[in-house]
Amino acid sequence: MTQRIYNFSAGPAVLPEAVIQEAKDNMLSLGDTGVGVMEHSHRGPALTAVFEEAEALCRQIANIPDNYHVLFLQGGASSQFAMIPQNFLADDQTADYLVTGSWSKKAVKEAKLFGNVHTVCSSEDTTFNYIPKDRNYSDNPRYVHFTSNNTIYGTQFATEPESPNGAPLICDASSDIFSRPIDVTKYGLIYAGAQKNLGPSGVTLVIIRDDLVQQGKEGLPSMHMYRTHADAKSCFNTPPAFGIYMMKLVFQWILDRGGLEGVAETNARKAGKLYDYLDGSHLFKPTAEKESRSQMNVTFVTGDADLDKEFIAFAQKRDLDALKGHRSIGGMRASIYNAFPEAGVDHLIDVMKEFEATHASAIASDSSEQA
Amino acid sequence: MTQRIYNFSAGPAVLPEAVIQEAKDNMLSLGDTGVGVMEHSHRGPALTAVFEEAEALCRQIANIPDNYHVLFLQGGASSQFAMIPQNFLADDQTADYLVTGSWSKKAVKEAKLFGNVHTVCSSEDTTFNYIPKDRNYSDNPRYVHFTSNNTIYGTQFATEPESPNGAPLICDASSDIFSRPIDVTKYGLIYAGAQKNLGPSGVTLVIIRDDLVQQGKEGLPSMHMYRTHADAKSCFNTPPAFGIYMMKLVFQWILDRGGLEGVAETNARKAGKLYDYLDGSHLFKPTAEKESRSQMNVTFVTGDADLDKEFIAFAQKRDLDALKGHRSIGGMRASIYNAFPEAGVDHLIDVMKEFEATHASAIASDSSEQA
Repeated sequence: MTQRIYNFSAGPAVLPEAVIQEAKDNMLSLGDTGVGVMEHSHRGPALTAVFEEAEALCRQIANIPDNYHVLFLQGGASSQFAMIPQNFLADDQTADYLVTGSWSKKAVKEAKLFGNVHTVCSSEDTTFNYIPKDRNYSDNPRYVHFTSNNTIYGTQFATEPESPNGAPLICDASSDIFSRPIDVTKYGLIYAGAQKNLGPSGVTLVIIRDDLVQQGKEGLPSMHMYRTHADAKSCFNTPPAFGIYMMKLVFQWILDRGGLEGVAETNARKAGKLYDYLDGSHLFKPTAEKESRSQMNVTFVTGDADLDKEFIAFAQKRDLDALKGHRSIGGMRASIYNAFPEAGVDHLIDVMKEFEATHASAIASDSSEQA
Repeated sequence: MTQRIYNFSAGPAVLPEAVIQEAKDNMLSLGDTGVGVMEHSHRGPALTAVFEEAEALCRQIANIPDNYHVLFLQGGASSQFAMIPQNFLADDQTADYLVTGSWSKKAVKEAKLFGNVHTVCSSEDTTFNYIPKDRNYSDNPRYVHFTSNNTIYGTQFATEPESPNGAPLICDASSDIFSRPIDVTKYGLIYAGAQKNLGPSGVTLVIIRDDLVQQGKEGLPSMHMYRTHADAKSCFNTPPAFGIYMMKLVFQWILDRGGLEGVAETNARKAGKLYDYLDGSHLFKPTAEKESRSQMNVTFVTGDADLDKEFIAFAQKRDLDALKGHRSIGGMRASIYNAFPEAGVDHLIDVMKEFEATHASAIASDSSEQA
């Protein structure tokens, strides 16, 4: 078989090799059923057990109270951008959005179709390279929405923002869910496309408090109401069964690594050594403000677009794939989600050192010119 | 490895073993990329090639003209039930629906949220056991909607219905798509959840004529507009990449079997021998009217619910799985989609004969009582 390389893709992203191996082993027969995992009826005993175990593991990982539903939906975060205001925001109401990147902006755009949007803060003035601390809420927001991690700009909320007057706090956690401990009770709704920390693309995890489900508007299309999916335990129609199965395996993998505390420790160490190197480098510069740095997506540049390109090609030849930054900002991005192996971070640092050494003379002459 | 058994599940359903095997081989590395099929960025070259090939194969199979878009969406047919009227039906307009089962009824329910629904025909009076020939259209329908195959009741349209005044014909083809040749030019829109004839659950194939895309309402949530997905070639957000990959493999598998003509011939033979046996049986009776019989889902009963149950258990012991009929009508259902092997149909017939023989005395005494 072809040797696996280090995959820094921002999403879909690397999955734990043991998880993929287990899925492979169950593709022609799920356990001893004689029927592959993709071929079982979603109402049969084998998949029902998979769905129940996925939910139970999810609840265990994040210590999710009984008054929250755990839903496995389709359509990605982009569908949630609309489904949230469609369910909760009336046209004379205002929802508060913290704008920290492209995904927040997209969420705002959909919300405006249903009601008023108040911008609590925005870091767009500096290409979203920080999480703003000055926040100005509206008087009585229907809910407060934020994006916990910004893949493109490499920023992350250190802790969840405030939510005035008990307004439900709603979080797009697509790119950092279950990468560190989370206090679910602070939230009304948490949603995440699976394809970064949880599984393959095509399944969306939604954790939603029951009172919000009950408050959802009536008379919407069945598939657009949280009530439908909560009542049917995610089986109103055929769910993305294989994606849920994969998520179940990833949940078990997280638990086997000490749960959220365990993966958080590894994630902090991985990101820490990468930022430490970047802070000391004469060639590479991290782009996010120090206090806003993401542990999931580490963005950096040389300051010279041609040199960036040269480095990406240099790294590619050394089995470091998908380091190119998002097309909207360029540079480099190392996405190092839960499943990204620490050895790959070490290898990246070695390769950056190697590249820096081969460009030492250029750096030296640059420095002397600037001096 | 556990021996595979014959899986008559109505959906998710059996997939071609060769397709599953190829997917297995690409899970840790798609080709020689060193990155698994579920782990590639949806905007990278490897998956872009997969998506393009899936579309090209789909077009080849069904001879789809250039003025149709081929879209890979999420949310299943249930999402299309709403998305169609949401895009095309104004509240003062009428759409015509042919009601031939539970799925048609669900589609009607969603359409009524957006405009008027006219029922062209309904076979609900006899538990949907036939496709009505008496059809009464409204004067100027916005579109005409039908369900080409009814999984629960085992009925199927032999040919597509008329569509008055050039109204776009829209078809939920979830359970018989690509099981026989189709003239796409007769349709405005064809949609199908993948999990019966095309792949795993979680991806929905939509074939839509460009003029319909352009006519779609504006100002809807981005994810709810066909325009969004047509413009972005199904990559507005992260698509269900693994499902599309599987669909690509299934499309190739269909082509390798002589395309739609080839699979249609096999399907006709499979269904033909099963119905022939049922027509001659003294114990089992097919439930759908002869002219409306489905080649995909063969429904039958003994006429005695306890005996049905006994047969299902008898068959289960002989490696024939998921023969239980839908909970709403009971009895038995053999779903024999494209990928269901002909040898499994032969085995089912043998097992039915065996069961019938063990109950010969009961049948004889029943007959004498009736005589």
